[in-house]
Amino acid sequence: MASESGVRRVKALVAYDGTEFSGWQVQDGHLSVQGAIEKVLGTILNHQVRIVASGRTDKGVHALGQVFHFDTINPISLPDLMRGSNALLPRSVRIRRITEMDADFHARFSARYRQYRYFVTGRDLPIFNRYAYVFKRPLDLRAMQRASRLLLGEHDFASFGSPMRKGGSTVRFLKRCEIRHKGSFVVFIIEANAFLRLMVRNTVGALLKVGSGRLDEEGLRRLIEVPTPGSLTPIPPQGLFLWRVFY
Amino acid sequence: MASESGVRRVKALVAYDGTEFSGWQVQDGHLSVQGAIEKVLGTILNHQVRIVASGRTDKGVHALGQVFHFDTINPISLPDLMRGSNALLPRSVRIRRITEMDADFHARFSARYRQYRYFVTGRDLPIFNRYAYVFKRPLDLRAMQRASRLLLGEHDFASFGSPMRKGGSTVRFLKRCEIRHKGSFVVFIIEANAFLRLMVRNTVGALLKVGSGRLDEEGLRRLIEVPTPGSLTPIPPQGLFLWRVFY
Repeated sequence: MASESGVRRVKALVAYDGTEFSGWQVQDGHLSVQGAIEKVLGTILNHQVRIVASGRTDKGVHALGQVFHFDTINPISLPDLMRGSNALLPRSVRIRRITEMDADFHARFSARYRQYRYFVTGRDLPIFNRYAYVFKRPLDLRAMQRASRLLLGEHDFASFGSPMRKGGSTVRFLKRCEIRHKGSFVVFIIEANAFLRLMVRNTVGALLKVGSGRLDEEGLRRLIEVPTPGSLTPIPPQGLFLWRVFY
Repeated sequence: MASESGVRRVKALVAYDGTEFSGWQVQDGHLSVQGAIEKVLGTILNHQVRIVASGRTDKGVHALGQVFHFDTINPISLPDLMRGSNALLPRSVRIRRITEMDADFHARFSARYRQYRYFVTGRDLPIFNRYAYVFKRPLDLRAMQRASRLLLGEHDFASFGSPMRKGGSTVRFLKRCEIRHKGSFVVFIIEANAFLRLMVRNTVGALLKVGSGRLDEEGLRRLIEVPTPGSLTPIPPQGLFLWRVFY
């Protein structure tokens, strides 16, 4: 699929533990996931590399299925590139798959849906609290499941998050919002065409309020019908995973 | 249960993420779990505290159910002591339960059995490789289960580990050795009256050799029948959890 010019567009699937990173995006003087990957790819490919992700993740947020793309003129085989990258990357970042794509593939613009999962647990154990939010009040799963249906579809989610660019649209299409009990965890599965900043953490936070009796369905409905930025306080990042991107 | 002298013997159940620690035992200039807990208890109880664990865990080994005891003359309530300790301890250490015991309770000498679990996974993901050993060869679960029966009962385990004190006995009683598939993991559950240094990691390492066809049952039997220190290379600590201590 290499173009005549010898430029190849490469798509990569990457998992990371966000605990030690300042977030996805390169920021001066901070250790970002993007920066760590660009440095390693630059070393292996022997030219400067800019990678473009499906979207940014905030400080402390994890990913199982983040997707990014980049261009290279280096003819290295993809298995060698993947092996080499994982050998040089910190253990907290693992490239899971590398594929060559047509030149019009774009990790961000070609993405149709993003799926995030948020893990909540009542058990305050060290091995859980790195990857889940420890929430000790009893939760009414049914009440959360019922309320979550209000969020489905196209809405102005301004109460739940802010646009990346100031003045940008706050309308998003929520395709799926599922809440499941799994072992020691309550798992929130949320899929949308795109997300506002802090939208998943604010949405799950509002549902936890419903589940613990501090917000009723009417209150949640009002947050949707009367978009009011700043209505919610985001819950912590460590329970959040960018789970999958659909193209 | 306080004695007339006002000295109370306290038993605590503690979980920790061993990643950042030099191990359980206090060592000069290193961050140990024991040291972190003694410092916090000393601050709260207002006198120096020595804690005694069921046993040491090595650098990088985790615990869900480590047990220790200590004595205090401070009349603080146990719920307050637990809350205060967890407020001051790093998030990687959580005290799960605190109980007052009779003066003859001893975390090490009163323990009848220790249970360790070792987690192995074929999926090299950041959120797994902090708490499991990434082992990519296919594993024959049945072969490991069959072979594991050879280890049960009383044996000289000198091929599998060394005594804490030089010249000490290497005979131990293995009560349980179970191997289960659970989700993305193969879990080894091993219970013995006591363990030699590196014994769990060498035992699971030997079983992984059986499961991946690099050691047959005859070879394993020889390791048991002809105790030969240094026969095995220990597998990494991050898959290992001190799971439970039985009194």
